Amino acid sequence: MEKTFEKTAVLDAMNGDRFAIDTVGIEILDIAPGYCKTRLRVEDRHLNGVGITQGGALFTLADFTFAVASNTVPGETVVAIEGSISFLKPSRTGHVLTGEGREIARTRSLSTVEVTLTDEHGNLLARFHGRGFVRK
Amino acid sequence: MEKTFEKTAVLDAMNGDRFAIDTVGIEILDIAPGYCKTRLRVEDRHLNGVGITQGGALFTLADFTFAVASNTVPGETVVAIEGSISFLKPSRTGHVLTGEGREIARTRSLSTVEVTLTDEHGNLLARFHGRGFVRK
Amino acid sequence: MEKTFEKTAVLDAMNGDRFAIDTVGIEILDIAPGYCKTRLRVEDRHLNGVGITQGGALFTLADFTFAVASNTVPGETVVAIEGSISFLKPSRTGHVLTGEGREIARTRSLSTVEVTLTDEHGNLLARFHGRGFVRK
Amino acid sequence: MEKTFEKTAVLDAMNGDRFAIDTVGIEILDIAPGYCKTRLRVEDRHLNGVGITQGGALFTLADFTFAVASNTVPGETVVAIEGSISFLKPSRTGHVLTGEGREIARTRSLSTVEVTLTDEHGNLLARFHGRGFVRK
Repeated sequence: MEKTFEKTAVLDAMNGDRFAIDTVGIEILDIAPGYCKTRLRVEDRHLNGVGITQGGALFTLADFTFAVASNTVPGETVVAIEGSISFLKPSRTGHVLTGEGREIARTRSLSTVEVTLTDEHGNLLARFHGRGFVRK
Repeated sequence: MEKTFEKTAVLDAMNGDRFAIDTVGIEILDIAPGYCKTRLRVEDRHLNGVGITQGGALFTLADFTFAVASNTVPGETVVAIEGSISFLKPSRTGHVLTGEGREIARTRSLSTVEVTLTDEHGNLLARFHGRGFVRK
Repeated sequence: MEKTFEKTAVLDAMNGDRFAIDTVGIEILDIAPGYCKTRLRVEDRHLNGVGITQGGALFTLADFTFAVASNTVPGETVVAIEGSISFLKPSRTGHVLTGEGREIARTRSLSTVEVTLTDEHGNLLARFHGRGFVRK
Repeated sequence: MEKTFEKTAVLDAMNGDRFAIDTVGIEILDIAPGYCKTRLRVEDRHLNGVGITQGGALFTLADFTFAVASNTVPGETVVAIEGSISFLKPSRTGHVLTGEGREIARTRSLSTVEVTLTDEHGNLLARFHGRGFVRK
């Protein structure tokens, strides 16, 4: 019997990510097979030395969105092997960032996901491209 | 008069990175022109849902090492425009990670830095490649 | 007076690319501001040692599509500084590849373009992400 | 019995790459386990529309160097899944480019190789980072 996508099981597993959820403060807004939407409200603790959101905070938001989107296949675990991000526009304290990730390809061994980070006005802040290795 | 590299000034500026220093807990171990060495002691709060150091924590270590190495030219500020990381080997709570970054090229407008992340046994955990835009 | 996009001028300039046009055999199918569509018919001379289209041929198709899409602003020349490609599915002699590139962001200094490579059945073969430096 | 590295077998296989060898004109200078050195003499047919070596020609040199370096393990075939290149300095007709690739990590499933492209004066022209999937 083909296992079916179970939203709650994926949510439970991914909310166990201490760094993304607890340390950085990311929320999962939506999940579907090969898809994930997340949110991060930028606070002072996410800023770098010149007062804009630190690249690592943005990468964490994108990478976590990728992780959730690629881990929506029951019985398979995807571990990231590669991630690249282009920083397109700075953001600051008070901005509400949305991460939206879509799996654009999946083979027996590899999952490929692209993530868009936008602010609350729809400005494109960053693009992320990730590859993950599939373990059964 | 040519401005000279001042270790203390760079340290002061970079230690103002709230996300890298306060939220993630990275320490700067060494700075020289175009060079930086950093450290992160992995704790439970850096882990992802499968118990290994989260990719965003590793990226933050690498990206911050890049930021310091590229910001060692007096009078110039470098802002990251691109960063990519390859995850090569997992790490866990208790591991002590070292980031070592070297600027491999610098033009009037662009700084290019490569960073190696290793654990306390010298195992290669990740490689990072970053580009930054130079502002005078 | 604002200079306007002139399709013929862009075509003339880009068809002067000896490597992409003459050596590899790429054709420009369509151009619009921030957009380009290209084509490559795979022949034996594009193959690698295991009989599939060589990565460099695919990269050239994608990179050239990026170059055209980013060079559609009159009075500005964009030179590539970074390109990354994910190989998703192999192709072979006889396949007709289409490159489609869109500029997703443009600032005073940087152009960011994403390119999709597909075959004649619409299969996704590769994704490319490029950044270029803008010269006035 | 452990199979041993056979230089001639690797050379024979890799010289069957029609695109890299015949179409672009790359030569293999040296091979060792996890290592490869290549050469490309830049001619007019490698140039882009603004008279510098086309990015696709440089990528092909780097990607092929990666392919050779990662295919030096007897009984295993590595197929590229990801390649990224940073263009650091332009080159022109008459320049003699050297590609030098080293495998920095290899697991059961993945090979990771970094390649440096230099000209005959030792100038750093480009850096390439590639990942390949290992098939037994």
